Amino acid sequence: MPEDTLLQRRHRVLGSASPLFYDNPLHLVRGEGVWLFDVDGRRYLDVYNNVPCVGHCNPHVTEAMHRQASTLNIHTRYLDEQVVRYAERLTATFGEPLDTAMFTCTGSEANELALRLARFASGGTGIIVSDYNYHGNSASLAQVTTALPSPEPFAAHARAVPIPCLYRAPAGTTEAQLAEQYAANIAAAIASMQAQGIRPAALLIDTLFANEGLPRVPASFVNKAAALIRAAGGLFIADEVQSGFGRTGDHLWGHQAHGVVPDIVTLGKPMGNGYPLAGLITHKALVESFGRHAMYFNTFGGSPVAAAVGMAVLDVIEQQQLLKNAQDVGAYVQQRLQALATRHSIIGDVRGKGLFFAMELVRDHASKEPAGLEARKVVNDMRENGVLISKIGAGDNILKLRPPLVFGRDHADLFVDTLDQALSAI
Amino acid sequence: MPEDTLLQRRHRVLGSASPLFYDNPLHLVRGEGVWLFDVDGRRYLDVYNNVPCVGHCNPHVTEAMHRQASTLNIHTRYLDEQVVRYAERLTATFGEPLDTAMFTCTGSEANELALRLARFASGGTGIIVSDYNYHGNSASLAQVTTALPSPEPFAAHARAVPIPCLYRAPAGTTEAQLAEQYAANIAAAIASMQAQGIRPAALLIDTLFANEGLPRVPASFVNKAAALIRAAGGLFIADEVQSGFGRTGDHLWGHQAHGVVPDIVTLGKPMGNGYPLAGLITHKALVESFGRHAMYFNTFGGSPVAAAVGMAVLDVIEQQQLLKNAQDVGAYVQQRLQALATRHSIIGDVRGKGLFFAMELVRDHASKEPAGLEARKVVNDMRENGVLISKIGAGDNILKLRPPLVFGRDHADLFVDTLDQALSAI
Repeated sequence: MPEDTLLQRRHRVLGSASPLFYDNPLHLVRGEGVWLFDVDGRRYLDVYNNVPCVGHCNPHVTEAMHRQASTLNIHTRYLDEQVVRYAERLTATFGEPLDTAMFTCTGSEANELALRLARFASGGTGIIVSDYNYHGNSASLAQVTTALPSPEPFAAHARAVPIPCLYRAPAGTTEAQLAEQYAANIAAAIASMQAQGIRPAALLIDTLFANEGLPRVPASFVNKAAALIRAAGGLFIADEVQSGFGRTGDHLWGHQAHGVVPDIVTLGKPMGNGYPLAGLITHKALVESFGRHAMYFNTFGGSPVAAAVGMAVLDVIEQQQLLKNAQDVGAYVQQRLQALATRHSIIGDVRGKGLFFAMELVRDHASKEPAGLEARKVVNDMRENGVLISKIGAGDNILKLRPPLVFGRDHADLFVDTLDQALSAI
Repeated sequence: MPEDTLLQRRHRVLGSASPLFYDNPLHLVRGEGVWLFDVDGRRYLDVYNNVPCVGHCNPHVTEAMHRQASTLNIHTRYLDEQVVRYAERLTATFGEPLDTAMFTCTGSEANELALRLARFASGGTGIIVSDYNYHGNSASLAQVTTALPSPEPFAAHARAVPIPCLYRAPAGTTEAQLAEQYAANIAAAIASMQAQGIRPAALLIDTLFANEGLPRVPASFVNKAAALIRAAGGLFIADEVQSGFGRTGDHLWGHQAHGVVPDIVTLGKPMGNGYPLAGLITHKALVESFGRHAMYFNTFGGSPVAAAVGMAVLDVIEQQQLLKNAQDVGAYVQQRLQALATRHSIIGDVRGKGLFFAMELVRDHASKEPAGLEARKVVNDMRENGVLISKIGAGDNILKLRPPLVFGRDHADLFVDTLDQALSAI
């Protein structure tokens, strides 16, 4: 009898629905920097994973984790220097009035808590999200999720609005007109809630719009959207689980590019370089008043180990000047991807910021018909050729390119050359 | 100008509502085994923390974490040997049909997911919980929480039922009668839901009833309760975040003492000895059918590091025979606490299982009036005398005694002697 394969064993104990990447799933055994290695010793360039932002298995981070885990690992009901220092350092990177931190373990928990805060502060229940969003796996987030299947019906108290995309805007529409049109959708969503007696609580968006496929949005859109929800008594929650920690190169935080200060910023994925660390930053007054009505406690959130890991990640981002790297290498990749677009007609649009790129594949430049099957082929071909990417968007046709922030020009060249081949093979 | 104290700095960046233990908060800097050390080098015996179940900073666990974090730390969308081996080892400790694992980072996430599964499987929304419960910090758990304040009103689709307590049962009531009476409350809760058109989804209880103060419940109560929810089409979810991983000494899992197999068992706190590791175990059929309607993914849940840590915790539990230790030392502590009860009239009841004890303090043995202020004094006195405990229960009068599982007889003697002094000082 042949031994069961790892895939068969996985299906048996985790179920067959636990999601896997690639038609030919990848069995990994090691990671280092921008590289992942499979069970046969083959090396893959990671152009997908943002969680290991300072590189897979970064020794500065793993040593800090080990040192602290060998010294003290406890919850926050005792006084501890590390969590206070980390919260001070983290909040200092935000301007006033974002001065207070609450720690969780996952981005889902951070968004879940942000919605609890927003409902409390507003006295409302209404949530506005994008029409292709994913903010987490809890029940109340599943009820407003539009980018993934879930058995929960879309919440009656929520409204999903489209996000403007300059690439798909009708010819002749100006940025200002587009911003007005899409802001009008948000105003209509608010009016529709109010007509049903639903008081708005929050606008919850990723300011990079990663799930939506990184659309270039008109400059004033996010600002207008935030003003509308606030005028209706709700809070503006910026989900920076994807856009935070220097990903965009221009700023440490994604919302800063939009010139708008959120009421709550939620953080996750790259925050602990793989250690389960997440949280939110908001106004002290909100935390204090919520705290008079709720006893919020997170057993593992804000532990000394979480804080030491978080500090180590900030150390590396600063010491290795990873914002500057994201800007420099990001600009280089953009330029090379734009050059590809002149040679491969399937490329409809190239966009992105810092080290997060989207390449939209279309069957026709006029109709912009999403080339979903082709995108799938490119992703699988790249995997076979040693470069890991993925795809997103409602048409499943947008390549999702989001390497660790320690990505250099040599890595960029290998990535773009491999992509060039994969596109040629279609 | 004097420097700000750590407490002031903490209030500034985490808010003043972030909960702290003791009237005189404890500033910790180191942990080892059953010991915690404060900033002045003073040693405290930890008789409270169940998270570091195999001991604070257990080197077998921290080495496993470091080794794996230095090798590969990635999400579950790639094939990985560690998570499969861990899931195989973990599910093997449950009998059939509990054969499939889903991993999360926190107990809150595990209970949140369990409720999603139960709503999906039952087609209902009705949740039955105890009238002094805490199962997590998400919105849908806050809506059914009765042991902590939260701004969310108690959910209209939920019912809170009292848990029987042999200590507080009317004189002359038999165990069988008590079980019948309290099961009748559950039947009434189900009927009340159904009368309002609410289909029952789940009974969610901690089979040790830790928040309720570890009441001794009649032998057949949990079995009857599970039968009632199932007859009404709902699932029985056993929250083993506190009772799991050998805490009770007699079995690895708390539900096993009740002779009933839950539909879902949720796990957390001690699972990773402080690393954010949690999850649930259930039937494969439920995971498979949920997976046909939902794409559940948890970025950090089930990572190779989480799996390596979870394996290391199971290693220590087995190699150091911690179940047997919980039984042996647990029996010894019980005996010494019972002896204290003969000398301190404030002790109304001593109860517990394995290495989880409750000592209920009352002002009068006839009225059983909760001695909440006295319990607070004992907890604070013990802290000043180098032993860490806490208190629970609706009357805040039940000492909560739950040391790491590596607790020995010498630790037990120090603990009981210090408790003896604190009780004498009242």
